[in-house]
Amino acid sequence: MELEHDATATAYEVCVGEGLIDDAGSLIAAACPAHRYSIITDTQVAGLYGERLLDALSGEGLNGMVLKFPAGEWNKNRENWSDLIDGMLRAGFGRDSAVVALGGGVVGDLGGFVAATFMRGVPLVQIPTTLLAMLDSSVGGKTGVDTAAGKNLVGAFHQPRLVLADPAVLKTLPGPQFTSGLAEALKHGLILDAAYFESIAAGLEDLFARQPDRLTDLIARSVEIKAAVVSRDERESGYRKVLNFGHTVAHAQEAISGYAWLHGEAVAAGMALEAAIGEAAGVTEEGVSRRIQEVLEAARLPVELDDEVDATRFFEALEKDKKRAGGRVRYTLIGEIGRVAASDEGDWTHEVPEELVRSVLFE
Amino acid sequence: MELEHDATATAYEVCVGEGLIDDAGSLIAAACPAHRYSIITDTQVAGLYGERLLDALSGEGLNGMVLKFPAGEWNKNRENWSDLIDGMLRAGFGRDSAVVALGGGVVGDLGGFVAATFMRGVPLVQIPTTLLAMLDSSVGGKTGVDTAAGKNLVGAFHQPRLVLADPAVLKTLPGPQFTSGLAEALKHGLILDAAYFESIAAGLEDLFARQPDRLTDLIARSVEIKAAVVSRDERESGYRKVLNFGHTVAHAQEAISGYAWLHGEAVAAGMALEAAIGEAAGVTEEGVSRRIQEVLEAARLPVELDDEVDATRFFEALEKDKKRAGGRVRYTLIGEIGRVAASDEGDWTHEVPEELVRSVLFE
Repeated sequence: MELEHDATATAYEVCVGEGLIDDAGSLIAAACPAHRYSIITDTQVAGLYGERLLDALSGEGLNGMVLKFPAGEWNKNRENWSDLIDGMLRAGFGRDSAVVALGGGVVGDLGGFVAATFMRGVPLVQIPTTLLAMLDSSVGGKTGVDTAAGKNLVGAFHQPRLVLADPAVLKTLPGPQFTSGLAEALKHGLILDAAYFESIAAGLEDLFARQPDRLTDLIARSVEIKAAVVSRDERESGYRKVLNFGHTVAHAQEAISGYAWLHGEAVAAGMALEAAIGEAAGVTEEGVSRRIQEVLEAARLPVELDDEVDATRFFEALEKDKKRAGGRVRYTLIGEIGRVAASDEGDWTHEVPEELVRSVLFE
Repeated sequence: MELEHDATATAYEVCVGEGLIDDAGSLIAAACPAHRYSIITDTQVAGLYGERLLDALSGEGLNGMVLKFPAGEWNKNRENWSDLIDGMLRAGFGRDSAVVALGGGVVGDLGGFVAATFMRGVPLVQIPTTLLAMLDSSVGGKTGVDTAAGKNLVGAFHQPRLVLADPAVLKTLPGPQFTSGLAEALKHGLILDAAYFESIAAGLEDLFARQPDRLTDLIARSVEIKAAVVSRDERESGYRKVLNFGHTVAHAQEAISGYAWLHGEAVAAGMALEAAIGEAAGVTEEGVSRRIQEVLEAARLPVELDDEVDATRFFEALEKDKKRAGGRVRYTLIGEIGRVAASDEGDWTHEVPEELVRSVLFE
């Protein structure tokens, strides 16, 4: 007997604007009504914005409580997930509560996974506080934690009801975190919107000055692009792979460096190098990798792998990734700036001979 | 900006039939193709059916591996969930694998939660080995684990690709487990199909003899009813509450007895008593509770609460449940045998004055 089931299609709001964090109360009350709000954040962000968000909620009569865990990627694990859930249970949170994840990508992933699994799922609001989280990781519904065996190996897809991005909070973001976010914005341009890529390149000075209006435009356009891709392919089965430009090489760099590189930094080097690989493979137009390098360097981002990454370690890291993904090393390549190249298989990824990759990266 | 996302609607197969476990290879290959299968089961079921299922898979060229955890409801926890995931990672399972949950409700819930969260979700096959799991818990997509604070407080909704129910395995099921399953089948009749309820009552002798044909019919009809309800309301927001007939009282009994009662036993007593409450409230037709009692007794099921359950402990347990659900004690009531009573609020649950419940249950 065949049973039909039809998961509810839903829509959610992404609000971007200076000072929005102080309007969080009314925005959350409208988009994500709940009996109580569990504000999940890390020790660092709690000190910066915890009280302000609580005030914004209580100003609208909403009942919030801050639950925090120690800051740091290595704390995105099952133990903290478990502790946060137990903290909510002890505080009497029920099915009619919602989770607000306030922080960078680590908080969004871990807080999102709490929301996905607390009593089989409660609504989620994302309030990202890093550029990368604002324009990339808070959109798409990926949540999860790391294990000793690797990153994001445990998790769930759980879409937020509302994403609130306030570029004013980026004023205090350290430089490397800021440029790491820029790398993903540039990627959005490179895969789908050449004019966007060039406008970022032309406006780097204003962006480095953290001008809220320019940042608002940047975040809004990146979210549009990311959301358009994700809505076509929510569970990452096909089209969503266009977002992986730069990521095959980046994952190897990250794994070898033990995640000493920020994600966006690794993606920057990955994009420069995968453009060169694409050119060598005849998929990417000549000159593209040079232009990408220029812009990345102007954006203070790396365009080469770390010295410690040699061919042996690099291909070992790919091999490990391959095993996990089920059998093939694939590259997302662009045809030219602003256009991902479809492969002959009708897929969005390309198989590239190892010798070719070796000659581009290591010879 | 408003983002649309559209979770994929899917359909899945429920196959019921004697000897199906030996056909699992071809059925799984067709409905849930995967590179490797992680067969999650408990120590008890592993000894009974683990090898047979592995043989059925390898007969079709499928690659399976058995991962087990200690049998028992108290082992449905985050520690075993974590260990099972780590076991899969150590064994090199990747995104292209699937989970087969082989066992009773505990295995289905725990194995299902592993499938829901391993690398953000992999496909799931349920092979239930108890009557309750076959006709009820394997359908509906609920997965999860218990915490010290209560049952199923952590989990996710994750629909199986395939449910395989082989009534031949019920021959070895202990009597109380068998009648516990019957209680849920009777509930399906009581809420939506009077003829089904009476056919179970008339056929109890064949059922107790574990006749595979009769059991196949029973499971198939119960699954149809459960699936029809669930497909109308996958996330338990409204209509799905019709399945809660008997459950408000049952949850209190279970909580007070520390889960010494089997779930179906508690539901049986709950149905008899909630029918009496419904009659006293003028919602349920006179005489219904008497007929329900007769049939439950013939099915060797309890119709009264345990002696240790007094009014004080009962209402305390309800209070705790209420807090968790967010504010109201509600009863799902039937109007007559085979028909759930809608409430005036257009909901499927009823508020009943505490004094009335007290007078029916304790005076």
